[in-house]
Order: sequence, then structure tokens, then C-alpha cells
Amino acid sequence: MTFTDFGREGPYLGQMEAVLAHRAPRSRVIHLQSDAPAFRPRAAAYLLQALLAPFPSGCVFLCVVDPGVGTPRRPLMLHAGTHWFVGPDNGLLLPAARRLGAMEAWVIRWEPPFLSQSFHGRDLFAPVAAMLANGEVVPGDPVQPDALQGWDWPTALWEVVYVDVYGNAMTGIPADSLSDAVVFNLAGRHIPYRRVFGEVGPGGLFWYRNSIGLVEIAMNQGSAAQRLGLGVGSPIECAE
Amino acid sequence: MTFTDFGREGPYLGQMEAVLAHRAPRSRVIHLQSDAPAFRPRAAAYLLQALLAPFPSGCVFLCVVDPGVGTPRRPLMLHAGTHWFVGPDNGLLLPAARRLGAMEAWVIRWEPPFLSQSFHGRDLFAPVAAMLANGEVVPGDPVQPDALQGWDWPTALWEVVYVDVYGNAMTGIPADSLSDAVVFNLAGRHIPYRRVFGEVGPGGLFWYRNSIGLVEIAMNQGSAAQRLGLGVGSPIECAE
Amino acid sequence: MTFTDFGREGPYLGQMEAVLAHRAPRSRVIHLQSDAPAFRPRAAAYLLQALLAPFPSGCVFLCVVDPGVGTPRRPLMLHAGTHWFVGPDNGLLLPAARRLGAMEAWVIRWEPPFLSQSFHGRDLFAPVAAMLANGEVVPGDPVQPDALQGWDWPTALWEVVYVDVYGNAMTGIPADSLSDAVVFNLAGRHIPYRRVFGEVGPGGLFWYRNSIGLVEIAMNQGSAAQRLGLGVGSPIECAE
Repeated sequence: MTFTDFGREGPYLGQMEAVLAHRAPRSRVIHLQSDAPAFRPRAAAYLLQALLAPFPSGCVFLCVVDPGVGTPRRPLMLHAGTHWFVGPDNGLLLPAARRLGAMEAWVIRWEPPFLSQSFHGRDLFAPVAAMLANGEVVPGDPVQPDALQGWDWPTALWEVVYVDVYGNAMTGIPADSLSDAVVFNLAGRHIPYRRVFGEVGPGGLFWYRNSIGLVEIAMNQGSAAQRLGLGVGSPIECAE
Repeated sequence: MTFTDFGREGPYLGQMEAVLAHRAPRSRVIHLQSDAPAFRPRAAAYLLQALLAPFPSGCVFLCVVDPGVGTPRRPLMLHAGTHWFVGPDNGLLLPAARRLGAMEAWVIRWEPPFLSQSFHGRDLFAPVAAMLANGEVVPGDPVQPDALQGWDWPTALWEVVYVDVYGNAMTGIPADSLSDAVVFNLAGRHIPYRRVFGEVGPGGLFWYRNSIGLVEIAMNQGSAAQRLGLGVGSPIECAE
Repeated sequence: MTFTDFGREGPYLGQMEAVLAHRAPRSRVIHLQSDAPAFRPRAAAYLLQALLAPFPSGCVFLCVVDPGVGTPRRPLMLHAGTHWFVGPDNGLLLPAARRLGAMEAWVIRWEPPFLSQSFHGRDLFAPVAAMLANGEVVPGDPVQPDALQGWDWPTALWEVVYVDVYGNAMTGIPADSLSDAVVFNLAGRHIPYRRVFGEVGPGGLFWYRNSIGLVEIAMNQGSAAQRLGLGVGSPIECAE
């Protein structure tokens, strides 16, 4: 299971998949998402944790949103619930792992035969993910979870964390935490709750509980992000 | 085989593939197309039927262009030729199934353990497609094909149904139905027939019979859609 | 392993994958890249050769950037190192095959049951790639490598060959051939060498040796291509 900001078209995801296929030939590779917010591990982290629900047990999540590649940020592997998470220590993995309960964490000590300066996803994280998928033991130094980046992040992030292909803007706010009576104020417009797209006319703006449990700002058959000028990082505010 | 308007980058296709991989681990998943015309099941339907030709027998087509998700539109499974089709009753499946000859149709009666309001592709249609791929029987209520949306749609749709990555504009017109002498009139330009891209110079506009049997408006090494202002739904007209 | 300019979203790659899955059901299909420079086999060729490094032995590379489809350009299969390459004789395959040492080349003589005018990737090249992956012998006429398009192309192409999803501009210049002291002059800006993204501040412009061994013009957390007005084919020049 990969979660990256690589884009699916370009050469990065294919190279990483080739490494996975070579090292873990019996494992299935699913590209969960490849347009995670680039350079924004925090927004990406809140999105990733929301995406966990539908997965069967025992997945390896290979997660790379890594603007610090080539700097001394640490490479991590985490075990939480029945899943493994592999990626950089920049907070990306934390909300997801934390959501699954008790976690164990290691700084990866395995060294690849070749390590480029700019593509640890291919050279380091993918081989480690493949080894974990194979059930192999990967050398690592245990680290306390509370020493990891993102440990102290709040449960809700009141920002846009992703704009999807239709122009719907997902926020980092768990939908269960809000009542239907909440009205948002975005770009001077009041945005009420609706249960589902079909409840408003074409072009109508509303918020709803999306399929991964986040508050999402949406427009029926149109782009809410475009209409309201929303992008990753835009703050979300309630109406008075 | 999936056919959706989800986009390949975002989290939707990956979640659906995870469900398919979990429930039908021995089946191969091919994403036939993930940029079908959003919110436009009719255009998407004419595109889908044209895409059937190269497929071997016994495929399950999981088709989701579903602006009515969450409203009472019915969930369908259809058997036609040797293929299964699964998706919403909004006409999307009809032209494809009709093209294969006699069809049987059922309203899906199987109920998933969890059904989100907005992502029936993941929660309902994908599990059903997986069960059909496994050869399992899925509970359903038989329905007469002529009671389905799209049953009375014409054979040809004189509109643009898709603009591809190069800017070529596919129409819903079967290419076999037209003579080479036909000239289209689009944005005040006369568009003649050419057999192949190499027959016109760079920037030349023409129409041809595309690889899936549709009339396609094209430009050699350039974007016909941009030059002529064409998008999904643009009407196609012959010159006098 | 596919390398195309088809785009991943649209119907082309999925149709080609369906053919591969049908004819070579035991082979794994990896889409290495699907946004190779459209209509520009030369730029695509320099990109492809740089992408070879991480692959295990015995791959079949199905490569289609084919603006001449439908004209008399020849269909090729090449064997070099342990890999096969299949695609049009327009130079696309040459730098990659040449890099692997001695090569053997054949003009494909196998004829498909149906050959569209515009999609030889699906109708001709994919079946041939599948047969080669199966270890089958494909009929072909031997051809001397020095009679192929691209045989006389230089080792370095001083142009942009690809702009990635982040806006980094890859060139056709092997990074090993340049000293760290080289400074480029692009759009009136001097672009110095840096080892890695983290060595410059957000918005800083630099060049570095990218993960596939090419000189790449980059900006930390921003788009170098946008800032400098670079696209595929833009010339690269050193500062005096």
C-alpha cells in the first residue's frame, strides 16, 4: 500500500513499484494515493489516518511525503495494530499509527546498497517495506513514540488537507466531533450541513461527513475549492 | 476492470482496489479508465460501450459515474454476453450491455456491513464486483431491461463524450455509420476526414475513425479540443 | 514494464494492460511512466535510458511515444543486456538499448488479427511484448543497429527532457559528466550546484544530480519550471 505525493504519471511511482515487485514478488502493491499534499507532511498525515478504515489486517503502508529527504531527518518503521508503516520522521506516520492504539517504533538501521540523495522512497523505504511484507526482520533502533515528530499534534486539524478531483475540500476535522447544526464561514459564505450531494441542487455549497469520516466542504456537481478559493492549508472557521 | 470518474491519483481508486484485493484476492484488477466524464453518466456510457472490444470473455466491469449517490437511484448488476456490469441505474451500463446482445438485469439486494452516503463504489459496488469475480451468487431482484435508465437512448450521441490527454475529442458517433465524405463544422472550421494522423501536417485538424470505433476530432501534434473550444457535451454538427 | 505518453487516467493504458493480462497472465505489469513527453520521442528516449538502473534482469519494456503511428515507420523489438525493448523505430529505444551494450534488433514481422490505424500500442506492440514475456519466439527480420533511427544521437542532450509533478526540470545531460563548479544560465538566472534540496531555503534554485543520474534544475518546495519558463525541449546553457 503506497501513500505518496509522487504523482501517478511520472517515473517515481513506477520505479518504486519495480523495487517492491522485485523484492516482494508475492505481495500485491496497491497505490492508495499518489497526490498527497506535496511538501506538507502534516496535512498528508491527517489524510492518511482517515484513510485507514477499509483496510484488512496486516498491511504495510509505504508513505513518502518527504521534503526533508537528504537532510538528517530519521527514517522510521512503526508497528501499530496489525499494520506496518514505513516513512520519514516528519509526522506523516504518527496520526495514523496513534489511531490504531499501542505502537512500537524503530529508526531504520538497514542500509541499502545504493542510496540516492533525493529518492529514499525507492532506495530505502521501498526495500524496507518489501522486507516487512515478506515477514523479514529489518534492523532498527527502538525509539519512544513520544520522541517522534507529530507526537503532540492535536486530534483535529482545522485546515483543508486535500482537494479531490471534483474540487471537494477535505478538512482535518473528524466529522463525528461536530453536530449537524454547525455552519462554516468560508470566503464570506455560510456553509450548512447536508447529509448527501443529492440533497442540494447543482452548484449548491454544503459540508458533509465524507466517506473517510472527515468534514468535507463540497458543491454538488461543481468545484467547492474553486468557488471558495480553498487549497491545502486554507483555514476552516465556524460562522458566529 | 474499473471504469470511473474518480481520478487515478486520489484516494478513491486505491480504496476501491483494496476492497477488491481483499474480497477477490485471485482476480486481477485493471483500471480501464479513471477520468470518465464526471457527473455525466450519459457521455460516459457511450464511451464505455466503445471500449468493450478488446476484452477477453468473462470480465466484471465495475463502473461508477454516480452523481446520484445517496439518492434512491437503484444499484444494478447486469449480465450480457460473457461479462458482468456493476454500477448505478443512471444509464451508464446500458449502451455497453445492449451492445453485447441479450442481457439480464438485477437490482442488487445484498447489503454491505457499512454503507457510506457518498462512496457506494467502495462500500457496495466493489464488494459485489468481487463476489461476481469469485463466481459467488449475489442476491438481487430481477428487473426488465426496458425498465432501466438509458434503455431508450439512441445508438449515436452527436456530442463530445471525452477529451483525451492529447486534446483529441471523441464523440458518441459510431465511425462505421459515416462516409469518408462527411465534413464537420465546428467553431466555424470545416473538419474533413483523414485516415491517420500522419496524413496531415503538424497542427492540421481532421476527423478519423479512432481505435475504439468512434468518430474523433483530432489535430496532429496538438490539441483539437483547445483549438476548437470543445469539451464533454459540446454538440457535433456536419457542414452543409 | 510500460513507458508511454498515454496518460494514466484515460482509456489507453487500461486497454493495453488488458491485452497484456490476457496474453501473458503470469507476468506482472508495471507502468513505469505514462507521461513521457508527448510527440517527442527524442526527449523521451533520453529519459528512458536514465530510468533503466533500478530494474532487475529480464524485463520487457513496452515503449510507445509514437507520433508516426499509421505511417510506414518500422515496428521494432530489441534485445540488449537481459532486457527486451518493443516500440517504434523513431529513436525512442536506442539510447536505452545502447547503454546496455551489445544489442540485437529485429523489425517485427508478426501480424496482429486486428490493427487499428492509431493504436499500435494496443494492437501490435502489447501482444509482442506479452509473447516475449512468455518466452515465445516472435517473427522478425534482423536489422543492423546502425540502420536504426537514433543510432547517431549524442550521449548528452542539452535540453529539458521532462518536467516532473513538483516542477523540477530533468535534462538529458548525464550528471557524472559535469563538475560541481558548473553554473547554468537560464532565463537570466545563475543556477549553481547543490547536493540536495535541504541545502537551499524554500524557493531557492539549484541544479543537482537526480536519482536517475541526470542533471536536474530544481527549486526547493516550488516549481523551477514555472519560475524559469522551462518545458520539454528548452535549451540548457552554462553561464560564462
